[in-house]
Amino acid sequence: MAVQRYIFDVWSKTAESFGYERYDASVLEPSDLYKAKGAENEELVNEQTYTFTDRGDREVTLRPEMTPTVARMVAGRRRELSFPVRWYSIPNLFRYERPQRGRLREHWQLNCDMFGATDYTADVEIIALAHAIIKNFGANDTMFEIRINNKELAQETIKKIASEEGEYLDEEQIKKVIRLMDREAKLSAVEYLDQMSKIVPRDVANSLCETTLEEVSKLMENVPSYQNLIEIGKGLASLGIVTKLDSHLVRGFDYYTGTIFEIFDVSGQNNRAMLGGGRYDNLTEMFGGEPISGIGFGMGDVTMRDFLETHNLLNANSTAPTLMIIPTDPTQNLEAQKIAQQFRHNADIAVAVDISTKKIGKKISDASEKMVEYVLVVGEDEVRDNQYTLKHLHEDNKKTGDITTLVAHFRD
Amino acid sequence: MAVQRYIFDVWSKTAESFGYERYDASVLEPSDLYKAKGAENEELVNEQTYTFTDRGDREVTLRPEMTPTVARMVAGRRRELSFPVRWYSIPNLFRYERPQRGRLREHWQLNCDMFGATDYTADVEIIALAHAIIKNFGANDTMFEIRINNKELAQETIKKIASEEGEYLDEEQIKKVIRLMDREAKLSAVEYLDQMSKIVPRDVANSLCETTLEEVSKLMENVPSYQNLIEIGKGLASLGIVTKLDSHLVRGFDYYTGTIFEIFDVSGQNNRAMLGGGRYDNLTEMFGGEPISGIGFGMGDVTMRDFLETHNLLNANSTAPTLMIIPTDPTQNLEAQKIAQQFRHNADIAVAVDISTKKIGKKISDASEKMVEYVLVVGEDEVRDNQYTLKHLHEDNKKTGDITTLVAHFRD
Repeated sequence: MAVQRYIFDVWSKTAESFGYERYDASVLEPSDLYKAKGAENEELVNEQTYTFTDRGDREVTLRPEMTPTVARMVAGRRRELSFPVRWYSIPNLFRYERPQRGRLREHWQLNCDMFGATDYTADVEIIALAHAIIKNFGANDTMFEIRINNKELAQETIKKIASEEGEYLDEEQIKKVIRLMDREAKLSAVEYLDQMSKIVPRDVANSLCETTLEEVSKLMENVPSYQNLIEIGKGLASLGIVTKLDSHLVRGFDYYTGTIFEIFDVSGQNNRAMLGGGRYDNLTEMFGGEPISGIGFGMGDVTMRDFLETHNLLNANSTAPTLMIIPTDPTQNLEAQKIAQQFRHNADIAVAVDISTKKIGKKISDASEKMVEYVLVVGEDEVRDNQYTLKHLHEDNKKTGDITTLVAHFRD
Repeated sequence: MAVQRYIFDVWSKTAESFGYERYDASVLEPSDLYKAKGAENEELVNEQTYTFTDRGDREVTLRPEMTPTVARMVAGRRRELSFPVRWYSIPNLFRYERPQRGRLREHWQLNCDMFGATDYTADVEIIALAHAIIKNFGANDTMFEIRINNKELAQETIKKIASEEGEYLDEEQIKKVIRLMDREAKLSAVEYLDQMSKIVPRDVANSLCETTLEEVSKLMENVPSYQNLIEIGKGLASLGIVTKLDSHLVRGFDYYTGTIFEIFDVSGQNNRAMLGGGRYDNLTEMFGGEPISGIGFGMGDVTMRDFLETHNLLNANSTAPTLMIIPTDPTQNLEAQKIAQQFRHNADIAVAVDISTKKIGKKISDASEKMVEYVLVVGEDEVRDNQYTLKHLHEDNKKTGDITTLVAHFRD
């Protein structure tokens, strides 16, 4: 819990430093929200989500992702909002899948989105925000890699490579190629080529598997989506952020329409993207009205934690109180509570009272184990003389005086 | 969302100042967890919760309360924990009920519990924590009332009143009387007496409805549970906290065994308890092993908000960035992003860039409406001369200089 709160804290502070405002929604959504995106989504909803029928005979789903929810919220309030809208959320998401490294049935995800801005500097900003988050955990630029591409460019590149071989691919084939490319890292080179050959003619498959980034760049240099991507890369470079154009990056979700990006741990310990996102210019359309352009990303707490652990960056604070008041026996418990109250009111520190029936020595060693910093013993003599000793548990440091003096010691 | 975050913030800061540590659990629990508490709970689970069968054929429930979950967690780790354990959580809870004032199908609730302490000062502390939370929202003691009672005392009082009339009541009758007493505020005096007469003989019913607090006090003064309650009241008084003994307070949940308490808004605007809790010494027993005593309370975000609104205490901060950078036209967008980055890195403030295609005047009025404090316009002239004007939107206050100077203005 301490780790999770540390992660959420860095996430929210960084998002807010870029002017993103927090939103939330219920974890329970109408299932239609996820089916609306197409027939293959209906299958996904039925097989990979927690979907139920409630007492009111509504089909409901524990949200597997946040983007459809936020798209609905923005579309529903389009008249009241002043664009660009910058929003973030830290929802818990559910998937009915076999749990595995980096992927649990329930996890939490930071979602940052900007709506209503089509300028390339929106893409620059959202990637700069993703970069700032990783940096704010204390990572340095050698630990991770930002890969960027453009969904339209990827589609056009596939078409172009096919046409160089004298073949024409239809929309359905291109979708299938993209979905296979998304799984490339999970397949051997032979399996990949083999599966590619089942979608497109053999010579096109060969070409798709062998074309290098340099060849793609040369082939596509006059295409607007390529130029846009280069401009984004240059914009990020001017902010000191290095990115890597990756022509194999496609992202699984069908709804991306422009820039797509992922951040990877380069240690080799964690194979999943830590963060992924992109531009989607049509998603609000299904809620009626003009489409509103959006760009955003999601990053999970599980992959984030794996990254931080791998690089020794986990830095959660102790959640123990600063001071433990230790009554020598139960007759001093109330006096100890009164003293605790004085520290809370006047020194603004976290204070607990050990009102167990354990012996003093055990109470002190328990406090030490919990990472409490200070203890103060309350016994008959201390109360009678109004003289208490504040003792640091991990340093050779103690101070004796009345409560007012000891409270002042903390306050000042 | 800003209101909710403000409420959560006061909740967590106050709980932590008393040494309570945060925990959480999944919102999805096995339904058995709620049925275990008895046959009438099975009915409650079936009728008033979101209960489903998942793909693995498990019966699961969206948690309607947090106490069974935390009892299971503590019981499961009893050997590793050093008692007393002080824990808090802010879970969302689901009930399948008709939504009404102060009661929604999904709401969030602060839960604070202490485990493994039977001393009366544990009860004093938990009620002092509840009191400190309300005070930390800026409330004064005239706005609310803390009512206390003891579940065992209530049961014994009912028995005693009956025996004074020469009648003996069995456990089942006493349970029914308690459940009716819990609904007293919702019934007229006639209805209440009428329903009471259906559970117990008429003369006992009369006596139960008419006995005053003074009479109860006299009748029960030698009973240990009464003496314990008085001691708790005195302990709280010594911390400056006024409570009111309320012999009609019973609390609905069957699992309470000792002290019970509620906090009420006295304005007359909000009839539901803002907060309720009590001591339960048997709840961990159903997970095996020795029972661990617990005492705790829950308070909901909806009733909390109603109270704060009624007393004009709602105090949520603006969530807008401190500074909006306003490029005069899209060619300045990237330069504006670079300037924003300098403010974030070197002055640690929240900064956004208005990269929309609106006119400058509209961008400034939008920033003002969002409650942004400062704007800084970035145009061709400003960039060429490296001279920018930082303008306060709500005060007559501006400052011109290069970016380094303006950043330093914020930092210092």
